[in-house]
Amino acid sequence: MNEQERIDLFRRAFPFWDRMSEVDKETFLRSSYEKKFKKGTNVHDGNECTGVILVKSGSLRLYLLSDEGKEITLYRLFPGDLCIFSASCALHSITFDIFIDSEEDSECTVVSGCAYEDLVRRMSEVKIFTLESALSALSDIMWVMQQILFLSIDKRLSIFLLDESAKTGSDTVKLTHEQIARYMGTAREVVSRMLKYFASEGLITSSRADGIRLLDKKRLRALTR
Amino acid sequence: MNEQERIDLFRRAFPFWDRMSEVDKETFLRSSYEKKFKKGTNVHDGNECTGVILVKSGSLRLYLLSDEGKEITLYRLFPGDLCIFSASCALHSITFDIFIDSEEDSECTVVSGCAYEDLVRRMSEVKIFTLESALSALSDIMWVMQQILFLSIDKRLSIFLLDESAKTGSDTVKLTHEQIARYMGTAREVVSRMLKYFASEGLITSSRADGIRLLDKKRLRALTR
Repeated sequence: MNEQERIDLFRRAFPFWDRMSEVDKETFLRSSYEKKFKKGTNVHDGNECTGVILVKSGSLRLYLLSDEGKEITLYRLFPGDLCIFSASCALHSITFDIFIDSEEDSECTVVSGCAYEDLVRRMSEVKIFTLESALSALSDIMWVMQQILFLSIDKRLSIFLLDESAKTGSDTVKLTHEQIARYMGTAREVVSRMLKYFASEGLITSSRADGIRLLDKKRLRALTR
Repeated sequence: MNEQERIDLFRRAFPFWDRMSEVDKETFLRSSYEKKFKKGTNVHDGNECTGVILVKSGSLRLYLLSDEGKEITLYRLFPGDLCIFSASCALHSITFDIFIDSEEDSECTVVSGCAYEDLVRRMSEVKIFTLESALSALSDIMWVMQQILFLSIDKRLSIFLLDESAKTGSDTVKLTHEQIARYMGTAREVVSRMLKYFASEGLITSSRADGIRLLDKKRLRALTR
Protein backbone atom coordinates (compact mmCIF):
# COMPACT_ATOMS: atom_id res chain seq x y z
CA MET A 1 0.00 0.00 0.00
CA ASN A 2 1.56 3.29 -1.03
CA GLU A 3 1.08 6.55 0.86
CA GLN A 4 -1.73 7.85 -1.36
CA GLU A 5 -3.69 4.61 -0.91
CA ARG A 6 -3.28 4.88 2.82
CA ILE A 7 -4.46 8.49 2.80
CA ASP A 8 -7.56 7.42 0.84
CA LEU A 9 -8.18 4.63 3.35
CA PHE A 10 -7.90 7.01 6.31
CA ARG A 11 -10.15 9.58 4.67
CA ARG A 12 -12.86 6.92 4.26
CA ALA A 13 -12.40 5.49 7.78
CA PHE A 14 -11.97 8.68 9.83
CA PRO A 15 -14.56 11.42 9.24
CA PHE A 16 -12.21 13.92 10.93
CA TRP A 17 -9.29 13.31 8.55
CA ASP A 18 -9.75 16.49 6.49
CA ARG A 19 -9.81 18.64 9.63
CA MET A 20 -6.51 17.31 10.97
CA SER A 21 -3.44 19.54 10.73
CA GLU A 22 -0.74 18.58 8.22
CA VAL A 23 1.61 17.71 11.10
CA ASP A 24 -0.99 15.42 12.67
CA LYS A 25 -1.64 13.70 9.33
CA GLU A 26 2.09 13.16 8.96
CA THR A 27 2.37 11.62 12.46
CA PHE A 28 -0.73 9.48 11.86
CA LEU A 29 0.76 8.10 8.63
CA ARG A 30 4.15 7.49 10.21
CA SER A 31 2.55 5.68 13.18
CA SER A 32 0.49 3.29 11.11
CA TYR A 33 1.56 0.06 9.48
CA GLU A 34 0.30 -2.96 7.53
CA LYS A 35 0.06 -6.30 9.24
CA LYS A 36 -0.84 -9.79 8.03
CA PHE A 37 -2.42 -12.34 10.33
CA LYS A 38 -2.48 -16.06 9.57
CA LYS A 39 -5.84 -17.80 10.06
CA GLY A 40 -6.40 -18.64 13.72
CA THR A 41 -3.77 -16.32 15.21
CA ASN A 42 -4.41 -13.80 17.95
CA VAL A 43 -4.68 -10.18 16.76
CA HIS A 44 -5.43 -8.40 20.02
CA ASP A 45 -5.21 -9.56 23.62
CA GLY A 46 -7.44 -7.69 26.12
CA ASN A 47 -4.63 -6.08 28.12
CA GLU A 48 -2.64 -4.48 25.31
CA CYS A 49 -3.25 -1.24 23.44
CA THR A 50 -2.80 -2.53 19.90
CA GLY A 51 -4.29 0.56 18.23
CA VAL A 52 -7.14 1.17 15.80
CA ILE A 53 -7.44 -1.78 13.40
CA LEU A 54 -8.78 -1.35 9.86
CA VAL A 55 -9.57 -4.63 8.08
CA LYS A 56 -8.40 -4.81 4.45
CA SER A 57 -9.04 -8.48 3.66
CA GLY A 58 -10.10 -11.59 5.53
CA SER A 59 -12.12 -11.45 8.76
CA LEU A 60 -11.54 -10.97 12.48
CA ARG A 61 -13.58 -12.37 15.37
CA LEU A 62 -14.10 -10.37 18.60
CA TYR A 63 -14.83 -12.36 21.74
CA LEU A 64 -14.90 -12.38 25.52
CA LEU A 65 -12.78 -14.93 27.37
CA SER A 66 -13.48 -16.27 30.86
CA ASP A 67 -10.83 -17.30 33.39
CA GLU A 68 -11.70 -20.90 32.60
CA GLY A 69 -11.11 -20.34 28.87
CA LYS A 70 -14.77 -20.21 27.85
CA GLU A 71 -15.37 -17.91 24.87
CA ILE A 72 -18.34 -15.82 23.77
CA THR A 73 -18.22 -14.50 20.20
CA LEU A 74 -19.44 -10.89 20.07
CA TYR A 75 -19.18 -10.11 16.37
CA ARG A 76 -16.95 -10.32 13.33
CA LEU A 77 -15.16 -7.61 11.36
CA PHE A 78 -14.96 -7.69 7.56
CA PRO A 79 -13.06 -5.66 4.93
CA GLY A 80 -13.82 -1.95 5.40
CA ASP A 81 -14.63 -2.36 9.12
CA LEU A 82 -12.82 -0.53 11.88
CA CYS A 83 -12.12 -1.79 15.41
CA ILE A 84 -11.89 0.82 18.16
CA PHE A 85 -11.77 -1.53 21.20
CA SER A 86 -8.21 -2.52 20.35
CA ALA A 87 -7.17 1.13 20.99
CA SER A 88 -7.88 0.64 24.68
CA CYS A 89 -5.48 3.39 25.80
CA ALA A 90 -7.83 5.90 24.12
CA LEU A 91 -10.90 4.40 25.84
CA HIS A 92 -10.47 4.76 29.58
CA SER A 93 -14.14 4.12 30.37
CA ILE A 94 -13.92 0.55 29.02
CA THR A 95 -12.91 -1.78 31.82
CA PHE A 96 -13.52 -5.21 30.32
CA ASP A 97 -11.14 -7.13 28.06
CA ILE A 98 -11.93 -7.92 24.46
CA PHE A 99 -9.97 -10.48 22.47
CA ILE A 100 -9.58 -10.59 18.70
CA ASP A 101 -8.52 -13.53 16.53
CA SER A 102 -8.01 -13.76 12.81
CA GLU A 103 -10.63 -16.12 11.37
CA GLU A 104 -9.07 -16.32 7.95
CA ASP A 105 -5.74 -15.10 6.58
CA SER A 106 -6.28 -11.37 7.01
CA GLU A 107 -4.56 -8.10 6.11
CA CYS A 108 -5.03 -5.07 8.31
CA THR A 109 -3.80 -1.50 8.67
CA VAL A 110 -3.10 -0.58 12.29
CA VAL A 111 -2.88 2.98 13.65
CA SER A 112 -0.69 2.86 16.75
CA GLY A 113 -2.49 3.36 20.05
CA CYS A 114 -0.17 6.16 21.25
CA ALA A 115 -0.58 8.32 18.14
CA TYR A 116 -4.32 7.81 18.22
CA GLU A 117 -4.63 8.55 21.92
CA ASP A 118 -2.64 11.76 21.52
CA LEU A 119 -5.14 12.93 18.89
CA VAL A 120 -8.13 11.97 21.06
CA ARG A 121 -6.71 14.10 23.85
CA ARG A 122 -6.27 17.14 21.61
CA MET A 123 -9.24 17.07 19.20
CA SER A 124 -12.72 16.82 20.72
CA GLU A 125 -14.06 15.73 17.33
CA VAL A 126 -11.78 12.68 17.43
CA LYS A 127 -12.82 11.98 21.00
CA ILE A 128 -16.51 12.10 20.04
CA PHE A 129 -15.90 9.81 17.04
CA THR A 130 -14.07 7.34 19.28
CA LEU A 131 -16.71 7.32 22.02
CA GLU A 132 -19.55 7.04 19.50
CA SER A 133 -17.85 4.14 17.68
CA ALA A 134 -17.34 2.29 20.96
CA LEU A 135 -20.87 2.99 22.18
CA SER A 136 -22.44 1.85 18.96
CA ALA A 137 -20.37 -1.37 18.94
CA LEU A 138 -21.26 -1.98 22.60
CA SER A 139 -24.90 -1.45 21.80
CA ASP A 140 -24.63 -4.25 19.20
CA ILE A 141 -22.83 -6.39 21.75
CA MET A 142 -25.67 -5.85 24.21
CA TRP A 143 -28.02 -7.21 21.58
CA VAL A 144 -25.90 -10.36 21.30
CA MET A 145 -25.82 -10.71 25.10
CA GLN A 146 -29.59 -10.31 25.33
CA GLN A 147 -30.01 -12.99 22.67
CA ILE A 148 -27.84 -15.35 24.67
CA LEU A 149 -29.55 -14.59 27.96
CA PHE A 150 -33.15 -14.41 26.84
CA LEU A 151 -33.69 -16.59 23.83
CA SER A 152 -34.17 -20.31 23.90
CA ILE A 153 -31.66 -22.42 22.02
CA ASP A 154 -34.02 -23.46 19.20
CA LYS A 155 -34.75 -19.80 18.40
CA ARG A 156 -31.10 -18.82 18.50
CA LEU A 157 -29.94 -21.77 16.41
CA SER A 158 -32.52 -21.15 13.69
CA ILE A 159 -31.62 -17.43 13.61
CA PHE A 160 -27.94 -18.37 13.34
CA LEU A 161 -28.47 -20.87 10.50
CA LEU A 162 -30.66 -18.46 8.50
CA ASP A 163 -28.16 -15.62 9.02
CA GLU A 164 -25.25 -17.79 7.88
CA SER A 165 -27.18 -18.96 4.85
CA ALA A 166 -28.09 -15.36 3.93
CA LYS A 167 -24.51 -14.21 4.45
CA THR A 168 -22.95 -16.90 2.26
CA GLY A 169 -25.81 -17.03 -0.25
CA SER A 170 -25.96 -20.82 0.10
CA ASP A 171 -28.45 -23.22 1.66
CA THR A 172 -25.57 -25.20 3.17
CA VAL A 173 -23.82 -24.05 6.32
CA LYS A 174 -20.27 -25.38 6.28
CA LEU A 175 -19.43 -25.12 9.97
CA THR A 176 -18.84 -27.82 12.56
CA HIS A 177 -21.09 -28.14 15.60
CA GLU A 178 -18.10 -27.04 17.67
CA GLN A 179 -17.75 -23.82 15.64
CA ILE A 180 -21.47 -23.05 15.83
CA ALA A 181 -21.40 -23.62 19.60
CA ARG A 182 -18.52 -21.20 19.93
CA TYR A 183 -20.30 -18.51 17.88
CA MET A 184 -23.43 -18.97 19.99
CA GLY A 185 -21.61 -19.05 23.32
CA THR A 186 -23.00 -22.44 24.25
CA ALA A 187 -21.78 -26.05 24.49
CA ARG A 188 -21.25 -28.32 21.49
CA GLU A 189 -23.58 -30.94 22.99
CA VAL A 190 -26.41 -28.40 23.12
CA VAL A 191 -25.96 -27.56 19.44
CA SER A 192 -25.67 -31.21 18.38
CA ARG A 193 -28.80 -32.15 20.31
CA MET A 194 -30.83 -29.33 18.80
CA LEU A 195 -29.58 -30.04 15.26
CA LYS A 196 -30.59 -33.68 15.70
CA TYR A 197 -34.06 -32.49 16.71
CA PHE A 198 -34.20 -30.11 13.70
CA ALA A 199 -33.22 -33.03 11.44
CA SER A 200 -35.89 -35.29 12.93
CA GLU A 201 -38.42 -32.54 12.18
CA GLY A 202 -37.25 -32.41 8.56
CA LEU A 203 -35.92 -28.84 8.87
CA ILE A 204 -32.32 -29.71 8.01
CA THR A 205 -29.95 -32.54 7.20
CA SER A 206 -26.59 -32.63 8.90
CA SER A 207 -23.53 -34.66 7.97
CA ARG A 208 -19.84 -34.33 8.65
CA ALA A 209 -18.99 -34.34 4.94
CA ASP A 210 -21.63 -31.96 3.60
CA GLY A 211 -22.31 -29.67 6.56
CA ILE A 212 -25.82 -28.53 7.47
CA ARG A 213 -28.35 -28.23 4.65
CA LEU A 214 -31.41 -26.07 5.30
CA LEU A 215 -34.42 -27.96 3.88
CA ASP A 216 -37.34 -25.91 5.19
CA LYS A 217 -36.43 -22.27 5.68
CA LYS A 218 -40.08 -21.28 6.09
CA ARG A 219 -40.47 -23.36 9.24
CA LEU A 220 -37.03 -22.34 10.49
CA ARG A 221 -38.13 -18.75 10.09
CA ALA A 222 -41.29 -19.50 12.07
CA LEU A 223 -39.07 -20.74 14.92
CA THR A 224 -37.27 -17.39 15.11
CA ARG A 225 -40.46 -15.57 16.10
CA MET B 1 -36.21 22.18 46.46
CA ASN B 2 -35.60 25.88 45.82
CA GLU B 3 -33.69 27.23 42.82
CA GLN B 4 -30.38 27.61 44.64
CA GLU B 5 -30.52 23.99 45.82
CA ARG B 6 -31.18 22.86 42.31
CA ILE B 7 -28.28 24.90 40.97
CA ASP B 8 -26.00 23.30 43.58
CA LEU B 9 -27.27 19.85 42.57
CA PHE B 10 -26.62 20.52 38.88
CA ARG B 11 -23.17 21.92 39.58
CA ARG B 12 -22.26 18.68 41.40
CA ALA B 13 -23.83 16.40 38.78
CA PHE B 14 -22.77 18.13 35.55
CA PRO B 15 -19.07 19.03 35.26
CA PHE B 16 -19.92 21.40 32.38
CA TRP B 17 -22.40 23.51 34.41
CA ASP B 18 -20.09 26.47 34.98
CA ARG B 19 -19.28 26.71 31.28
CA MET B 20 -22.93 26.92 30.20
CA SER B 21 -24.29 30.31 29.09
CA GLU B 22 -26.74 32.06 31.40
CA VAL B 23 -29.54 31.46 28.89
CA ASP B 24 -28.77 27.74 28.75
CA LYS B 25 -28.72 27.51 32.55
CA GLU B 26 -32.08 29.24 32.65
CA THR B 27 -33.56 26.77 30.11
CA PHE B 28 -32.02 23.83 31.94
CA LEU B 29 -33.60 24.93 35.22
CA ARG B 30 -36.98 25.62 33.63
CA SER B 31 -36.96 22.19 31.91
CA SER B 32 -36.23 20.21 35.05
CA TYR B 33 -38.65 19.07 37.71
CA GLU B 34 -38.94 17.00 40.91
CA LYS B 35 -40.74 13.68 40.78
CA LYS B 36 -41.66 11.15 43.46
CA PHE B 37 -41.98 7.47 42.65
CA LYS B 38 -43.79 4.99 44.89
CA LYS B 39 -41.97 1.73 45.62
CA GLY B 40 -42.41 -0.71 42.76
CA THR B 41 -43.57 1.77 40.10
CA ASN B 42 -42.05 2.15 36.66
CA VAL B 43 -39.74 5.18 36.26
CA HIS B 44 -38.59 4.73 32.67
CA ASP B 45 -39.85 2.50 29.90
CA GLY B 46 -37.29 1.65 27.18
CA ASN B 47 -39.05 3.48 24.33
CA GLU B 48 -39.52 6.89 25.93
CA CYS B 49 -37.06 9.74 26.33
CA THR B 50 -37.67 10.51 30.00
CA GLY B 51 -34.57 12.68 30.41
CA VAL B 52 -31.55 12.65 32.70
CA ILE B 53 -32.56 11.32 36.13
CA LEU B 54 -30.76 12.42 39.31
CA VAL B 55 -31.62 10.32 42.38
CA LYS B 56 -32.23 12.32 45.57
CA SER B 57 -33.54 9.61 47.88
CA GLY B 58 -34.54 5.95 47.64
CA SER B 59 -33.16 3.66 44.94
CA LEU B 60 -33.87 2.75 41.33
CA ARG B 61 -33.27 -0.56 39.57
CA LEU B 62 -32.17 -0.71 35.90
CA TYR B 63 -33.02 -3.89 34.00
CA LEU B 64 -33.45 -5.50 30.63
CA LEU B 65 -36.80 -7.04 29.75
CA SER B 66 -37.36 -9.85 27.26
CA ASP B 67 -40.45 -10.26 25.07
CA GLU B 68 -41.56 -13.04 27.40
CA GLY B 69 -41.27 -10.77 30.45
CA LYS B 70 -38.00 -12.19 31.78
CA GLU B 71 -35.89 -9.56 33.57
CA ILE B 72 -32.16 -9.13 34.07
CA THR B 73 -31.12 -6.61 36.71
CA LEU B 74 -28.16 -4.53 35.49
CA TYR B 75 -27.50 -2.27 38.45
CA ARG B 76 -29.11 0.01 40.98
CA LEU B 77 -28.92 3.79 41.41
CA PHE B 78 -28.65 5.42 44.82
CA PRO B 79 -28.85 9.04 46.08
CA GLY B 80 -26.30 11.16 44.21
CA ASP B 81 -26.30 8.88 41.14
CA LEU B 82 -27.19 10.04 37.66
CA CYS B 83 -28.88 8.00 34.92
CA ILE B 84 -28.05 8.89 31.34
CA PHE B 85 -29.78 5.96 29.57
CA SER B 86 -33.19 7.47 30.28
CA ALA B 87 -32.21 10.42 28.05
CA SER B 88 -32.35 8.15 25.03
CA CYS B 89 -33.04 10.98 22.56
CA ALA B 90 -29.54 12.30 23.32
CA LEU B 91 -27.96 8.85 22.80
CA HIS B 92 -28.60 7.77 19.24
CA SER B 93 -25.96 5.05 19.27
CA ILE B 94 -27.86 3.08 21.93
CA THR B 95 -30.30 0.73 20.26
CA PHE B 96 -31.42 -1.48 23.13
CA ASP B 97 -34.14 -0.70 25.66
CA ILE B 98 -33.44 -0.20 29.33
CA PHE B 99 -36.20 -0.21 31.93
CA ILE B 100 -36.09 1.48 35.33
CA ASP B 101 -38.27 0.77 38.37
CA SER B 102 -38.35 2.43 41.75
CA GLU B 103 -37.22 -0.09 44.35
CA GLU B 104 -38.20 2.01 47.32
CA ASP B 105 -40.19 5.23 47.61
CA SER B 106 -37.81 7.53 45.73
CA GLU B 107 -37.40 11.22 44.95
CA CYS B 108 -35.67 12.30 41.77
CA THR B 109 -34.87 15.41 39.80
CA VAL B 110 -35.42 14.97 36.07
CA VAL B 111 -33.88 17.14 33.33
CA SER B 112 -36.19 16.91 30.32
CA GLY B 113 -34.84 14.95 27.36
CA CYS B 114 -35.45 17.72 24.82
CA ALA B 115 -33.58 20.41 26.75
CA TYR B 116 -30.70 18.02 27.39
CA GLU B 117 -30.53 16.87 23.78
CA ASP B 118 -30.45 20.45 22.55
CA LEU B 119 -27.40 21.10 24.75
CA VAL B 120 -25.68 17.89 23.58
CA ARG B 121 -26.08 19.04 20.00
CA ARG B 122 -24.57 22.46 20.70
CA MET B 123 -21.80 21.84 23.27
CA SER B 124 -19.21 19.20 22.45
CA GLU B 125 -18.23 19.10 26.13
CA VAL B 126 -21.77 18.00 27.02
CA LYS B 127 -21.72 15.45 24.23
CA ILE B 128 -18.45 14.00 25.52
CA PHE B 129 -19.79 13.88 29.10
CA THR B 130 -22.93 12.08 27.87
CA LEU B 131 -21.04 9.53 25.76
CA GLU B 132 -18.50 8.87 28.52
CA SER B 133 -21.22 8.39 31.14
CA ALA B 134 -23.06 5.93 28.90
CA LEU B 135 -19.87 4.09 27.96
CA SER B 136 -18.75 3.74 31.54
CA ALA B 137 -22.18 2.46 32.64
CA LEU B 138 -22.23 0.02 29.71
CA SER B 139 -18.79 -1.17 30.68
CA ASP B 140 -20.17 -2.01 34.16
CA ILE B 141 -23.15 -3.71 32.53
CA MET B 142 -20.78 -5.85 30.45
CA TRP B 143 -19.21 -6.99 33.70
CA VAL B 144 -22.63 -8.08 34.99
CA MET B 145 -23.36 -9.87 31.72
CA GLN B 146 -20.02 -11.66 31.84
CA GLN B 147 -20.76 -12.77 35.39
CA ILE B 148 -24.09 -14.19 34.29
CA LEU B 149 -22.65 -15.91 31.24
CA PHE B 150 -19.40 -17.22 32.66
CA LEU B 151 -19.80 -17.88 36.36
CA SER B 152 -21.41 -20.93 37.85
CA ILE B 153 -24.48 -20.42 40.03
CA ASP B 154 -22.78 -21.29 43.34
CA LYS B 155 -20.14 -18.62 42.73
CA ARG B 156 -22.67 -16.00 41.72
CA LEU B 157 -25.01 -16.74 44.59
CA SER B 158 -22.28 -16.52 47.21
CA ILE B 159 -21.03 -13.24 45.70
CA PHE B 160 -24.58 -11.91 45.76
CA LEU B 161 -25.20 -12.88 49.41
CA LEU B 162 -21.89 -11.42 50.60
CA ASP B 163 -22.49 -8.20 48.63
CA GLU B 164 -25.97 -7.81 50.10
CA SER B 165 -24.71 -8.47 53.59
CA ALA B 166 -21.91 -5.89 53.15
CA LYS B 167 -24.33 -3.35 51.68
CA THR B 168 -26.89 -3.63 54.48
CA GLY B 169 -24.34 -4.21 57.27
CA SER B 170 -26.29 -7.24 58.44
CA ASP B 171 -25.66 -10.99 58.33
CA THR B 172 -29.26 -11.56 57.33
CA VAL B 173 -30.42 -11.09 53.74
CA LYS B 174 -34.11 -10.21 53.78
CA LEU B 175 -35.01 -11.06 50.20
CA THR B 176 -37.22 -13.84 48.84
CA HIS B 177 -35.80 -16.51 46.54
CA GLU B 178 -37.91 -14.96 43.79
CA GLN B 179 -36.27 -11.55 44.32
CA ILE B 180 -32.77 -13.01 44.39
CA ALA B 181 -33.49 -14.93 41.20
CA ARG B 182 -34.61 -11.74 39.52
CA TYR B 183 -31.47 -9.86 40.59
CA MET B 184 -29.33 -12.70 39.32
CA GLY B 185 -31.23 -13.15 36.06
CA THR B 186 -31.96 -16.79 36.74
CA ALA B 187 -34.94 -18.95 37.74
CA ARG B 188 -36.33 -19.14 41.30
CA GLU B 189 -35.92 -22.94 41.30
CA VAL B 190 -32.20 -22.57 40.60
CA VAL B 191 -31.76 -20.19 43.54
CA SER B 192 -33.87 -22.34 45.90
CA ARG B 193 -31.94 -25.48 44.99
CA MET B 194 -28.58 -23.81 45.55
CA LEU B 195 -29.67 -22.24 48.87
CA LYS B 196 -30.83 -25.66 50.04
CA TYR B 197 -27.39 -27.00 49.17
CA PHE B 198 -25.69 -24.08 50.99
CA ALA B 199 -27.88 -24.82 54.04
CA SER B 200 -27.01 -28.52 53.98
CA GLU B 201 -23.34 -27.50 53.96
CA GLY B 202 -23.91 -25.29 57.02
CA LEU B 203 -23.12 -22.07 55.14
CA ILE B 204 -26.53 -20.46 55.73
CA THR B 205 -29.95 -21.00 57.22
CA SER B 206 -32.98 -19.98 55.20
CA SER B 207 -36.55 -19.50 56.39
CA ARG B 208 -39.53 -17.59 55.09
CA ALA B 209 -39.89 -15.63 58.32
CA ASP B 210 -36.27 -14.69 59.00
CA GLY B 211 -34.74 -14.56 55.52
CA ILE B 212 -31.28 -15.95 54.78
CA ARG B 213 -28.72 -15.91 57.61
CA LEU B 214 -25.06 -16.18 56.61
CA LEU B 215 -23.42 -18.59 59.09
CA ASP B 216 -20.01 -19.14 57.55
CA LYS B 217 -18.84 -16.15 55.53
CA LYS B 218 -15.31 -17.49 55.30
CA ARG B 219 -16.40 -20.54 53.34
CA LEU B 220 -18.85 -18.48 51.29
CA ARG B 221 -15.95 -16.22 50.39
CA ALA B 222 -13.90 -19.25 49.35
CA LEU B 223 -16.70 -20.18 46.94
CA THR B 224 -16.42 -16.83 45.18
CA ARG B 225 -12.87 -17.55 44.04
